[in-house]
Amino acid sequence: MSARTERLLAAIEAAGIDRLLVTQPSNLRYLTGFTGSNGLAVVGREELLFVTDFRYVEQAATEVDQAFARVQATGQLARTVAARLDGSGSLRLGFDDAHISVLAHERLRDLLPNGVELMPAAGLVERLRRVKEAGEVERIAACARLADEALEEVLDRGVVGRTERELALALEVAMRERGASGPSFPPIIAAGPHGALPHAEPRDVAVAAGELLVVDWGAVLDGYCSDCTRTFATGSLSGEAAAVYELVRAAQQAGLTAVRAGVPGREVDSIVRQVIADGGYGEQFGHGLGHGVGLETHEEPRLSSRSDDVLEAGNVVTIEPGIYLPGRFGVRIEDLPVVRDDGCEVLTGLAKSLRVLS
Amino acid sequence: MSARTERLLAAIEAAGIDRLLVTQPSNLRYLTGFTGSNGLAVVGREELLFVTDFRYVEQAATEVDQAFARVQATGQLARTVAARLDGSGSLRLGFDDAHISVLAHERLRDLLPNGVELMPAAGLVERLRRVKEAGEVERIAACARLADEALEEVLDRGVVGRTERELALALEVAMRERGASGPSFPPIIAAGPHGALPHAEPRDVAVAAGELLVVDWGAVLDGYCSDCTRTFATGSLSGEAAAVYELVRAAQQAGLTAVRAGVPGREVDSIVRQVIADGGYGEQFGHGLGHGVGLETHEEPRLSSRSDDVLEAGNVVTIEPGIYLPGRFGVRIEDLPVVRDDGCEVLTGLAKSLRVLS
Repeated sequence: MSARTERLLAAIEAAGIDRLLVTQPSNLRYLTGFTGSNGLAVVGREELLFVTDFRYVEQAATEVDQAFARVQATGQLARTVAARLDGSGSLRLGFDDAHISVLAHERLRDLLPNGVELMPAAGLVERLRRVKEAGEVERIAACARLADEALEEVLDRGVVGRTERELALALEVAMRERGASGPSFPPIIAAGPHGALPHAEPRDVAVAAGELLVVDWGAVLDGYCSDCTRTFATGSLSGEAAAVYELVRAAQQAGLTAVRAGVPGREVDSIVRQVIADGGYGEQFGHGLGHGVGLETHEEPRLSSRSDDVLEAGNVVTIEPGIYLPGRFGVRIEDLPVVRDDGCEVLTGLAKSLRVLS
Repeated sequence: MSARTERLLAAIEAAGIDRLLVTQPSNLRYLTGFTGSNGLAVVGREELLFVTDFRYVEQAATEVDQAFARVQATGQLARTVAARLDGSGSLRLGFDDAHISVLAHERLRDLLPNGVELMPAAGLVERLRRVKEAGEVERIAACARLADEALEEVLDRGVVGRTERELALALEVAMRERGASGPSFPPIIAAGPHGALPHAEPRDVAVAAGELLVVDWGAVLDGYCSDCTRTFATGSLSGEAAAVYELVRAAQQAGLTAVRAGVPGREVDSIVRQVIADGGYGEQFGHGLGHGVGLETHEEPRLSSRSDDVLEAGNVVTIEPGIYLPGRFGVRIEDLPVVRDDGCEVLTGLAKSLRVLS
């Protein structure tokens, strides 16, 4: 049995349930190794079960941890699970209430024998996933390097005169050609005033000279995600744009300096926010500071004013403050550090001194 | 107020609810025009409300139907909605129980004032979306044409000796260069025995001469999806492969011939399945015949042995039988017809006589 499964069994017992239904694809992959789109695991001291349909039987045979008994479902996966559960005693079956819909929950309840009680148990696997193993950090680091190299290749070909959409597509292609299975999210390439939208979509608009250009991008490699943002200039900037850039850079550096095991995510957010507020732009930083990255681009822990998460060694998180001036420009700088006991190690490698592109 | 909103209001009243929370992105886009990732609408005779966060306020101002009052949420969208609802009478608030999680439902219930009752109401917007307006059919047709042209371009450059992954990436790029926002799903390019997996993922394996090659691909253009499959040969085929190809082609044509308004999806599925069974391959067609296509690649109505859907004029559906011989080869042929009162009109244009590629 894997160390991950051992840790999950301990968490399951601590949560007061007998077995856990694992249904979210990322959780299932983390726990069993399965990468298909339709699978389900039941995890308990007395049983480790993996269920999929006919399309994925061969794939499951090669991917899924041998500790799991493998079963092919004929219809719905949940029906197969329900038919195997013994309700003659009383069994507390945990389910992922953060992801299972009200309707799916109702159908599942109807399938289960009397004596099996469904218990909300969201987040148990996500909690384990927060702390990355060395091998996971290596994968994320490789993914971040790939993404860095892909962007360098695209920037080297020049950006002024090319449209945001062309650049976004070129970046995706450069990542895929380096072995990425895809982008970890649709890249943001946002020039000038468009950079003031934190989630801008690339437009059919050419990048002009003398603007700021926000690039927020990441790759997926071997199932793991990366996430990084840089803001570039395409010529000389107004005094305010240059000053805002340096303010975001200083704030982001203050965030990285504050990152270490034991510090609440809320505290790092607050430190960065204070730097920006002191610079006079407190109202223009309207989003949280960062989030965990791993099998998903956005996962635990969270770094924001509303988060109760405390950083732990092995977390991989983003530090990504921004200042957005609607109708004018935006600046965001984001790195991907892995949290260590005494600080952090940044996995994203591109320089942050203001770079002027042609 | 748009005709869509009018129709939804009628459906809401027929369902015995006072207001409907619209939360799924595709439903929200259909109803309001909003294309961002975080929004929510409340639809009722007395109120049409659209809520989003600060990131999407500008986008909502340009995109969202003017009939909706627009509100910026400060925290969670649901909290803003709850604070505006008057529970002094009694209000039945419909929610999407097929998509809202057990946990989100519980949190929402806790936020709502007494007197507001949550009622499961999944599928009301999806039901409207089944019947496409003329403008929607035009968009899907344009999307299908774009996808056809992109594939032609890729095939013209030759396929033998190129890997499945290279071809899939080239196809995605060709679609994006023609203006698609992306593929409607990761393209399937599956050569030889790999074609026997209905959901094959492209491999780093070169296409050889003398094989069958299954290509299942689609684009997203202006929010609408296309979906098409062709199976090609890369040289002369064995007698059985050629015969299976012609059997699938005949079965698929029988399906298209059966499509018209008023026919149950189950009946079209059964007609196609019978042709394949009569040819001796009934056990090798293990999936449903087709599905609706629109703002999502897979939507209502369904054409399968388990569907109760009846085709209506304006449905856009796939007809996609396949025969899969594990370890040997697979054949699937898929078109995208729009259902008419007296038959159908096929939006996908590539020829279906067996084409030999080099």
